[in-house]
Amino acid sequence: MFDYFFNPESIAIIGATANPKKFGNAVTSNILSNENLKSKLFLVSNTAEEIMGKKCYKSLLEIENEIDLVIILIPAKVVLQVINDCIDKKVKGIIIVSSGFGEIDEEGKKLESLISEKCKNANIRVMGPNCVGIQNPKVGLNASFIQMPIQGNISMISQSGSIGCALFYAMEPSGLGISKFANIGNAIDVAFDEMLDYFDNDEDTKVIALYLESLTDGVQFFKVLKKLALKKPIIVLKGGKNSQGMEAASSHTGSIATNYEIIKAVLHQSNAILCENLEDFITAIKTFSLLPLPKGDSIGVLTNSGGSAVLFTDNIERYGLKLTTFSETLKKEIQPYLIPLVKMVNPLDMIAGAGKQQYYQVTKAMINDPKIDIIVAGCVIPPFLEMETDEHYKGVLQAWNESNRVKPVIPMFLFSENFKNLRNFAILEKAPIFFSPNEAAYAIKLIVEWTTSHNKKNLS
Amino acid sequence: MFDYFFNPESIAIIGATANPKKFGNAVTSNILSNENLKSKLFLVSNTAEEIMGKKCYKSLLEIENEIDLVIILIPAKVVLQVINDCIDKKVKGIIIVSSGFGEIDEEGKKLESLISEKCKNANIRVMGPNCVGIQNPKVGLNASFIQMPIQGNISMISQSGSIGCALFYAMEPSGLGISKFANIGNAIDVAFDEMLDYFDNDEDTKVIALYLESLTDGVQFFKVLKKLALKKPIIVLKGGKNSQGMEAASSHTGSIATNYEIIKAVLHQSNAILCENLEDFITAIKTFSLLPLPKGDSIGVLTNSGGSAVLFTDNIERYGLKLTTFSETLKKEIQPYLIPLVKMVNPLDMIAGAGKQQYYQVTKAMINDPKIDIIVAGCVIPPFLEMETDEHYKGVLQAWNESNRVKPVIPMFLFSENFKNLRNFAILEKAPIFFSPNEAAYAIKLIVEWTTSHNKKNLS
Repeated sequence: MFDYFFNPESIAIIGATANPKKFGNAVTSNILSNENLKSKLFLVSNTAEEIMGKKCYKSLLEIENEIDLVIILIPAKVVLQVINDCIDKKVKGIIIVSSGFGEIDEEGKKLESLISEKCKNANIRVMGPNCVGIQNPKVGLNASFIQMPIQGNISMISQSGSIGCALFYAMEPSGLGISKFANIGNAIDVAFDEMLDYFDNDEDTKVIALYLESLTDGVQFFKVLKKLALKKPIIVLKGGKNSQGMEAASSHTGSIATNYEIIKAVLHQSNAILCENLEDFITAIKTFSLLPLPKGDSIGVLTNSGGSAVLFTDNIERYGLKLTTFSETLKKEIQPYLIPLVKMVNPLDMIAGAGKQQYYQVTKAMINDPKIDIIVAGCVIPPFLEMETDEHYKGVLQAWNESNRVKPVIPMFLFSENFKNLRNFAILEKAPIFFSPNEAAYAIKLIVEWTTSHNKKNLS
Repeated sequence: MFDYFFNPESIAIIGATANPKKFGNAVTSNILSNENLKSKLFLVSNTAEEIMGKKCYKSLLEIENEIDLVIILIPAKVVLQVINDCIDKKVKGIIIVSSGFGEIDEEGKKLESLISEKCKNANIRVMGPNCVGIQNPKVGLNASFIQMPIQGNISMISQSGSIGCALFYAMEPSGLGISKFANIGNAIDVAFDEMLDYFDNDEDTKVIALYLESLTDGVQFFKVLKKLALKKPIIVLKGGKNSQGMEAASSHTGSIATNYEIIKAVLHQSNAILCENLEDFITAIKTFSLLPLPKGDSIGVLTNSGGSAVLFTDNIERYGLKLTTFSETLKKEIQPYLIPLVKMVNPLDMIAGAGKQQYYQVTKAMINDPKIDIIVAGCVIPPFLEMETDEHYKGVLQAWNESNRVKPVIPMFLFSENFKNLRNFAILEKAPIFFSPNEAAYAIKLIVEWTTSHNKKNLS
């Protein structure tokens, strides 16, 4: 299913151009310039003989090879002719990148209906129109006009191309990469439900992330979601939540935004994860991509910053979560590594002088403690005592790795976004960093809720 | 008032040390190494003859010069003797950096009472104990063991030193600098109220930011707050909001955390700004430091990203805010700069190809529109069409600067944290960047509420 989109044997680009000021060129050169891409490539242009050293055909029908995937970059008003050619050529899939359809006016909507009917009858699947395209970094396919994300285990369907692009900016510095990305735009044919089904069976997809504004078939979406959300985390952000936002969404993709209360109810029933804003969405992606799930909800905290432990504690109480009480065994275990000023309570404030050794030993002891399910290693990177800016994180990771990451360990390193050595090390280790008490608490809420609801479902 | 803390003519450091593994050394070298500092410096050490080329005295009383400020770095148990010396020497202020006092046990609390009583009788003011110290970048004073922040218009009082340190990490990349910083620690004498009073009269302070866990004198705090919050924005984050958090706070600074509901009520009455988490706290600091206040709450949005406009619209509705309807005059004004696919509605999605020229012209037209009070210039930085990554921002800034920044312009550049050229340009221009729809909406809520409540107060 859909492999002709994400791993096509042959691609034809309709409207290829060498003019760097045109979107068609961005797509063309994103496809042509990737040396890893094994697909056979064919360019179709009205005007050019050759682009980037590659021969251009005057029409799709001139190409002798079979074509899996056609990418359409020409203006809306001339798309229909190419659709007819696609039908004659018996292609499998079409991506219409061009805009100027249902998001503009009634005439555009009519054009969409016509295209979708023709393709349906010919058994050709369509993505778009009004989209940035699709991507599969693993095979070097960037059939879009945005930047190629790094490769990873997250598959994403976004109804907005620019939100996809912005998310890549946010994800890459944390090493969060993409398995498959699709911007479905006005979604006149391929929509969320079938894409979900495809990602479910995709071995390279661990986490599924959806940005959605409207659903074409809510019932079908719900059915698929209910089946899948028990297996893989499905993280959802809804754009157009209320009357104003829905109006904005409608002028964005030309479809009526789906009612938020309905979406909420549906997602809740299906155990998908609904996020309230982009920041939470990114945190959820990071959490499910990089953390193991906990056995229970008992939390142990170590830190070098009393203030951040206080703020973290405030934040988890919002979610009905609690810190556990340290056992005497644990206290005895960790005491030798701590200075006498440290109080043996949870959250454990090891005070500003704690370094790699303390972070390593205490994280290890908490992981080994059967009473603790989730470990939060908080830190404000100390600019004093000649400490290395990544030593605390390295101590935590050493303990976590030695335990084979059996329990979730949450490194809560306040506003450490700009410590390059730390971030590079985290990427190398495929380990997360959470940047605030708020973010760390939200991550824990997510994994605890996931575990709880899935334990229930599996029992019932 | 308090100039002997923030701009002392002379400083004595008790417990100066050359051992880079000791906090005393961090403070000593932070003070000694700043060439801009004009204060006369005196080191007191039991053991060293000389530190960093500077003579050491055996005791405070050996120093012939008068001393404004004494900084104490020695262990808690030997502090009392130095306090006696301070009284004999008639110093004006003392900062006790050392920990091991009321935050540890009852004995520590008793020691605090003794110190505070002695100093009160001698008319000497005390900051701390258990604090990182104070800073005044303008005069080159870093009397603390954390990094010196950049100079700016924000004065900050933090009950947690590490939260201060973390906030500097978060603020500096946005060019948000400090006028005065103080970590009051266990606050046995100098507390929030008097510091506020001092900052109120400080010409270099435009915005006041407080991280507080407990208040020693709530009534006095409220009095001062009520007077000041009408003049300067006072931004507050409270640590220890609920039973668990309050317990954590209590083991942090040794004081009982103040009840959150009371703080909320007090802040609301006094028009101070209460933030719910660190992220909001930083956004509030940025907002009041870098944006002018609006005349009303009518919002106009331009963007190259339909999705981000949808999410922004969702977010402002949460705060009861609304987008205005564009006037015919405005539409006529901007149409020539936009492609025909662009719909003339608010939010204005100029579509992905819009560049510097469009951002400049449309921002300018919205600033000039008497029906619009607040302009939001949204952008997902395009990785295509050979666009410069900072051209959209530069277009917005050009229009804003030409108008002398009479209206708040909110550049909402999604997850553009890692575009170095953009951020450096923003710092140079002393202009903000907001990184998400959520953040931009919160900034607007803050300035609209501030304007509304202050208009009311000034009328009443």
